[in-house]
Amino acid sequence: MRKIGEKEINDIATGAALLGAGGGGDPYIGRLIALNAVRECGDVTLLSPDEVPDDAFIVPIAMMGAPTVLCEKAINGGEYKVLSQMVESYFNKKIFAFMPIEAGGVNSMLPIAAAARLGLPLVDADGMGRAFPELQMVTFTIGGMKATPMALTDEKGNSCIFNTITNKWTEELARSVTMSCGGSVSVCLYTMSGADMKKYAVRDIVTRSEQLGSALRLIKESGQEDTEDRFLQITEGFKLFKGKILDVRREVRGAFNFGKVTLDGIGEYKKHSAYVEFQNENLSAVVDGKIMATVPDLICLVDSNTYTPVPTDALKYGKRVIVVGLKCFERWRTEAGLALVGPHYFGLETDYIPLEERVKA
Amino acid sequence: MRKIGEKEINDIATGAALLGAGGGGDPYIGRLIALNAVRECGDVTLLSPDEVPDDAFIVPIAMMGAPTVLCEKAINGGEYKVLSQMVESYFNKKIFAFMPIEAGGVNSMLPIAAAARLGLPLVDADGMGRAFPELQMVTFTIGGMKATPMALTDEKGNSCIFNTITNKWTEELARSVTMSCGGSVSVCLYTMSGADMKKYAVRDIVTRSEQLGSALRLIKESGQEDTEDRFLQITEGFKLFKGKILDVRREVRGAFNFGKVTLDGIGEYKKHSAYVEFQNENLSAVVDGKIMATVPDLICLVDSNTYTPVPTDALKYGKRVIVVGLKCFERWRTEAGLALVGPHYFGLETDYIPLEERVKA
Repeated sequence: MRKIGEKEINDIATGAALLGAGGGGDPYIGRLIALNAVRECGDVTLLSPDEVPDDAFIVPIAMMGAPTVLCEKAINGGEYKVLSQMVESYFNKKIFAFMPIEAGGVNSMLPIAAAARLGLPLVDADGMGRAFPELQMVTFTIGGMKATPMALTDEKGNSCIFNTITNKWTEELARSVTMSCGGSVSVCLYTMSGADMKKYAVRDIVTRSEQLGSALRLIKESGQEDTEDRFLQITEGFKLFKGKILDVRREVRGAFNFGKVTLDGIGEYKKHSAYVEFQNENLSAVVDGKIMATVPDLICLVDSNTYTPVPTDALKYGKRVIVVGLKCFERWRTEAGLALVGPHYFGLETDYIPLEERVKA
Repeated sequence: MRKIGEKEINDIATGAALLGAGGGGDPYIGRLIALNAVRECGDVTLLSPDEVPDDAFIVPIAMMGAPTVLCEKAINGGEYKVLSQMVESYFNKKIFAFMPIEAGGVNSMLPIAAAARLGLPLVDADGMGRAFPELQMVTFTIGGMKATPMALTDEKGNSCIFNTITNKWTEELARSVTMSCGGSVSVCLYTMSGADMKKYAVRDIVTRSEQLGSALRLIKESGQEDTEDRFLQITEGFKLFKGKILDVRREVRGAFNFGKVTLDGIGEYKKHSAYVEFQNENLSAVVDGKIMATVPDLICLVDSNTYTPVPTDALKYGKRVIVVGLKCFERWRTEAGLALVGPHYFGLETDYIPLEERVKA
């Protein structure tokens, strides 16, 4: 058990934006939401999973929608209260703690803001260890847990409670409502017991985000050059490419950002080219026509000077980036994990090959 | 208070299909649903509005979606129970009686089936006195009542409860989910007290449907010819056109059937032509380029020999029909009524002029 306040929030936002693998929202917006909340309501208690009683009622909270929409059409601040009332009255149970469902610049921060504003603790765990575009893509689905009853509200005050036969149907119905509400909404789903959380969640992800964020900050503050090796060491990342953004194609469809970013090599990658395809999050990195990484491994773009993570909604012409691959949470590499979030699900014409093997080859 | 069984159901289905003004579903399907229910569970008690206590909890029930979909993708029969449990547990109140929300071949019948299967009475009233395509288009909206909390379920077992800031938002969100569920679902909405029902509902609509249906049946059974005057007298209808269907254009969009049917005159209308535009229900009838009737007045197509109502989903080339206009429920002709369901709302470029004045002119 420890407190998280302004300093921690700044680092968590950066680290979570890296782990967002392009998605999970703009850390600038996310940071503001969380900072305002702790400034007004005080620091948040972070519980490690083992500090949570087995019968505690744990409620993941997140924003759902297209990141490009989410950064313009923010929350009104009353959503946490609306959602928690919906959930508590539906289950007739008090919420013990909030929890993030995924990493990412906004979805790491919203649970902190919710916890601060409602005076509840936050659990140091999530359901992905990264970000994914669809609701069913969580370790909890592998564990056979249900996304519903799920609560959804928009900033105008519309709300729904869903009960669905599968988590894929939850995605389907909630996505439709998200689109009708303008492309982004706030949600609580996969409400669970402390026991289930301990069994299926990705542990210590808030702390890992903070460590990553703090290490990136220290590199930046050091003012040194040639820190790329240190960056790769800290992130345990595989360097896949370094280049200048030549072109970004983006399409908002079904409350997702689909797209492709094309890169022209710089430094040791001069005369080489690469592209990264995304659906909110980066799905695959292809260098000189050869696939270097795919989901569920994390494909992250960072500014080549500052190592600041560049989410898919912030891609723009001329930006110089390093493309780095990080190994995903182990359970994603199982058969059940790959069925849910492997390359075939996203329409990529390749089997999954672990990042480290692709890089070696 | 009286019982309705097989005989009544047959007549109600026919009369309600006429009052559906082209929408509200196929009376063949609707009739089967209601007949099966009363055969298995016994006749249904029909209460006149004044027999309902002021504090009784009244629950309208209906299908939502495109009529063409609804006649292929029917209910599974468990929806009534799911919906009533959702509503009762949400409000923590027992349902006193079901009620139809609109006329039409299916939406007059589903409440009868629900009442039979759950052993509850049915109230002889609805919210339109006809059928309209969108959820907010009920007399209850004029009365300032809310559509939500609204319960929705599909035949697969997915369900939602909506709470929205306006009834137009209810339509928006529930329509999205309806589309995702395949184009038709079952719903309970505008749950209300007996007192509100008496104040705002269109009274005695089940009985009126039955009387119309029975009169149409008697004409058909009489085997006489030249019964058109009798048909018009019984329905208090204005004959707008008689013709052969030349063309039907139909588009399923947003879980609605949009379209236009073109007619080539027969009998005294030989050498004349007409068309009727629809969005689930018929919106306007235009004869030789002149508007003869618009929403909210009822524009009904019936078979020119048998006077069987022809809903928009049953329009087909070569069918001979009479186009007849019926005056709408008075409250639709007020300023508030026309704002909700007048020609401008549906994009028709005309002010509302009452049917009887258009016909006289």
